[in-house]
Amino acid sequence: MDVFSPAMAADRFLDEWHRIVSMHDMEALRDALAEDVTIGAPPYWTRLEGRPIVHHLLGLIIETIEGFSYYREWQDGSELALEFQGKVGALDVQGIDLITLNEQGQIQNLDVLMRPTNTIIRLQEIVAPRMAEFLEHR
Amino acid sequence: MDVFSPAMAADRFLDEWHRIVSMHDMEALRDALAEDVTIGAPPYWTRLEGRPIVHHLLGLIIETIEGFSYYREWQDGSELALEFQGKVGALDVQGIDLITLNEQGQIQNLDVLMRPTNTIIRLQEIVAPRMAEFLEHR
Repeated sequence: MDVFSPAMAADRFLDEWHRIVSMHDMEALRDALAEDVTIGAPPYWTRLEGRPIVHHLLGLIIETIEGFSYYREWQDGSELALEFQGKVGALDVQGIDLITLNEQGQIQNLDVLMRPTNTIIRLQEIVAPRMAEFLEHR
Repeated sequence: MDVFSPAMAADRFLDEWHRIVSMHDMEALRDALAEDVTIGAPPYWTRLEGRPIVHHLLGLIIETIEGFSYYREWQDGSELALEFQGKVGALDVQGIDLITLNEQGQIQNLDVLMRPTNTIIRLQEIVAPRMAEFLEHR
């Protein structure tokens, strides 16, 4: 039995990820991220890099989307696609996390794609000022 | 051997789908859609329904995104997640098609999620007026 197989690492990651998101466990979220993790956020093409920035941004997103629940999930080795739904205020959102894990089972890259457009814009209106404040004061 | 297994139907669908998108084969695209197919388009929450509308909308999207190429692909029975990239004019786009196949291996539902926001808005500016024209004249 190869305990380091990508599929087993992905299974372990998924159990922990679901726990992190449902419990809003921000400390465990930090450990789930590679130090040089990158994120492709919904509003921007250029990816943001580094554990502190990605950790803070993900925390804001998880905090802002109410009733965050995962639905369909796909796994192919260390590549995952996790569909979620939730609400931003009164607006519905459907999204997907496209995740690449590193060999330690941490997130190496996370692209977040969502619909519809008005919810993406509303989420950005809430998250962007808080993100700017974080970047100014760190 | 069960020739009607969801996995085999999905494999057959994927071969045909790649051919349709790369060749812009609009006739074959029609056959790949269930009669009561639904689509969750990037700008709207409410899904559109019916083969003629979905066929026309998909045709416009495929036509408008230049250099449309698929990258990571996930398959779980009759549920598929297909990542694509391309350009809308000068703007990059990353997207994903979340596809549910029916028992005949046709698309029953297709949700299209994309990033970044400015590309979604630009795509909508191009596609929406043509879609409105189609809906007026049919």
